[in-house]
Amino acid sequence: MMKVDVLTLFPEMMDGVFRASILGKAQEKGIVSLNAINFREYSNSKHGTVDDTPYGGGGGMVLKPEPIFSAVEDLVSRTSTTPRIILMCPQGDTFTQRKAEEFAKEEHLIFICGHYEGYDERIREHLVTDELSIGDYVLTGGELPAMVAIDSIVRLLPGVLGNETSAVTDSFSTGLLEYPHYTRPAEFRGWKVPDILLSGHHANIELWRREQALKRTLERRPDLLDKVELTDQDRQFLKQLQNERESGR
Amino acid sequence: MMKVDVLTLFPEMMDGVFRASILGKAQEKGIVSLNAINFREYSNSKHGTVDDTPYGGGGGMVLKPEPIFSAVEDLVSRTSTTPRIILMCPQGDTFTQRKAEEFAKEEHLIFICGHYEGYDERIREHLVTDELSIGDYVLTGGELPAMVAIDSIVRLLPGVLGNETSAVTDSFSTGLLEYPHYTRPAEFRGWKVPDILLSGHHANIELWRREQALKRTLERRPDLLDKVELTDQDRQFLKQLQNERESGR
Repeated sequence: MMKVDVLTLFPEMMDGVFRASILGKAQEKGIVSLNAINFREYSNSKHGTVDDTPYGGGGGMVLKPEPIFSAVEDLVSRTSTTPRIILMCPQGDTFTQRKAEEFAKEEHLIFICGHYEGYDERIREHLVTDELSIGDYVLTGGELPAMVAIDSIVRLLPGVLGNETSAVTDSFSTGLLEYPHYTRPAEFRGWKVPDILLSGHHANIELWRREQALKRTLERRPDLLDKVELTDQDRQFLKQLQNERESGR
Repeated sequence: MMKVDVLTLFPEMMDGVFRASILGKAQEKGIVSLNAINFREYSNSKHGTVDDTPYGGGGGMVLKPEPIFSAVEDLVSRTSTTPRIILMCPQGDTFTQRKAEEFAKEEHLIFICGHYEGYDERIREHLVTDELSIGDYVLTGGELPAMVAIDSIVRLLPGVLGNETSAVTDSFSTGLLEYPHYTRPAEFRGWKVPDILLSGHHANIELWRREQALKRTLERRPDLLDKVELTDQDRQFLKQLQNERESGR
């Protein structure tokens, strides 16, 4: 069973997400154990202080090293695993699907989430094994980023996704954006489902879907095409699309 | 007051996040109204069906157009605003701080969150104004991405962040990664705070912080340097760092 601990000053932020849907079921099945821990409990001050003003002046507050070191060391001492200790911060490595796959192989993950405060640099230098950012935008804390990382990691664990859900999501594993999906009704407000999807010709449908995925990726995220394994047929189709675009200008 | 509606099959996932911390306070102050709505209530079937199998075969389920069109149209009909209608999906534009700033100027946002299912393409083509992705990783649903976008947008609304919090976060607005922060104790387990921060020389501290921010950005995210306004002094320091690196090889 994978163990995931989240150190935060707002453990209640995790409740709804940890209980719902896939993460809730993964815990019920005993595949993962998710725990949100308030590191204020590890403060050595009687008022539960966890932050202080920055040396050198300036606004804002900085999370003190002691409570976070103590919390992590307590968690580590209670287990025989060697956990990855992950600081959620804008300075971290950008989280990607490849990182999710890497973390999904671990036994024990400890996430550290600050909340609109800086971390004392000694946490970064002497305690953590990884620093992660989920994207180039500013958030009020590390809690949502930790939940995002946990969701993407846990869904990769064997037994978490049922057959009914894995098929759609697996289409991401091609490295292309997904082809368009359609379901009933065949006509909605005059907008029809493409004829080919109603044709029953499976080989043609498969080709159409591949081409649509290539087209959408070329239009929206051409950067992804560099990382994908393409067949000769794919390349020919992409070349044709590019020729059409150029002659259309 | 900004109005934010989230259409989801798992409204309970939002509870902890919408109530906690900054988002909770922003609602108490009357700056934003956050509502999670289950679009299953808009199903026209008596069993509350919202999805169906895909035309053309294949695994997985696809969200039907009717319930989502009905839900959005009901929300739009109850207001005089012209909302942005945002589909959270891996095919969307990558969410960035610039997008957060853009959305923060709107009066009304409607987020549509699927949950490990595809969207009928007609939703994408004929209903939404925007498609957003928060990063290149696979998640079980659009709920966490919507919460991430909402958090980053709402913290930008006037009056949401107090003075005590804005200063630290404002340092992101330079476009560089943050310089290292330190707080008490001055020595922790033998690891000392850099002397300069204890010196009281404010001009030197300011220069040190700028250089540390430049250094960290160069080491970790050189791509960000292309988008930042640099002074002549900054450029000289970066050149010096690069020379040191090269002679160190």
